[in-house]
Amino acid sequence: MTAYDSNNIFAKILRGEIPCHKVYEDEHTFAFMDIMPRCPGHTLVIPKEPARNILDISPESFAHVARTAKKIAVAGMKAFKADGITLQQFSEPASGQVVYHLHMHVMPRVEGVVLLPPATRKEDVKVLEDHATRLIAALKD
Amino acid sequence: MTAYDSNNIFAKILRGEIPCHKVYEDEHTFAFMDIMPRCPGHTLVIPKEPARNILDISPESFAHVARTAKKIAVAGMKAFKADGITLQQFSEPASGQVVYHLHMHVMPRVEGVVLLPPATRKEDVKVLEDHATRLIAALKD
Repeated sequence: MTAYDSNNIFAKILRGEIPCHKVYEDEHTFAFMDIMPRCPGHTLVIPKEPARNILDISPESFAHVARTAKKIAVAGMKAFKADGITLQQFSEPASGQVVYHLHMHVMPRVEGVVLLPPATRKEDVKVLEDHATRLIAALKD
Repeated sequence: MTAYDSNNIFAKILRGEIPCHKVYEDEHTFAFMDIMPRCPGHTLVIPKEPARNILDISPESFAHVARTAKKIAVAGMKAFKADGITLQQFSEPASGQVVYHLHMHVMPRVEGVVLLPPATRKEDVKVLEDHATRLIAALKD
């Protein structure tokens, strides 16, 4: 497997070099809106530990990602009046990974509404801001 | 959300009332071959804690599922000479959940080979046996 490259865009987001619509942060993880959401509320949970994907992440760091994904899932149900949640995590190009810092997709689902294909379109910044605000409020409940 | 129903088939597998092709077990989790695999090596990781899905599982139990999913992912890469791993976890019918005991799908991916649609066909028992044996061997490496 290729080694971790600290110039990937999620590493830059973690370092504050690139802006994002942040929804959550703790000692071990960080969560922000996917700018090309496959559904309203599509959020990415990433570890602060540098890790390319599931193959090189430490078990503890991946456990932290899971705990945060659950938090975001519960908040996403409220914030988007969702009927369900889809989690996805891709490791290596064969799986569809395109940014090489581990990220867990948390996607609130509404009955009968299919997910957009990955990278269909960039969402409007105002919409992303609104969705982040809703998630942050739901996380406080 | 509907309450956990202990008569679901994965609860029965955990209690040993229904057979399965087991690949791993520890204090908190259990892993076995999906009988309708979307790719060779498609494995399900479940918590021993009764949990319908991500919405009601305890954060600790979900963290255990993540740690075991990582173990299975690393073993799956070796056992199936895979190029990548796809993780998926569905919560509630709107997301495609059909068995109501939380399960994380761990799917070894090969470059250029798409996943079969869910529930396409039951795999031959001998094939599942062979795949479980390969995973168990890789978990020991």
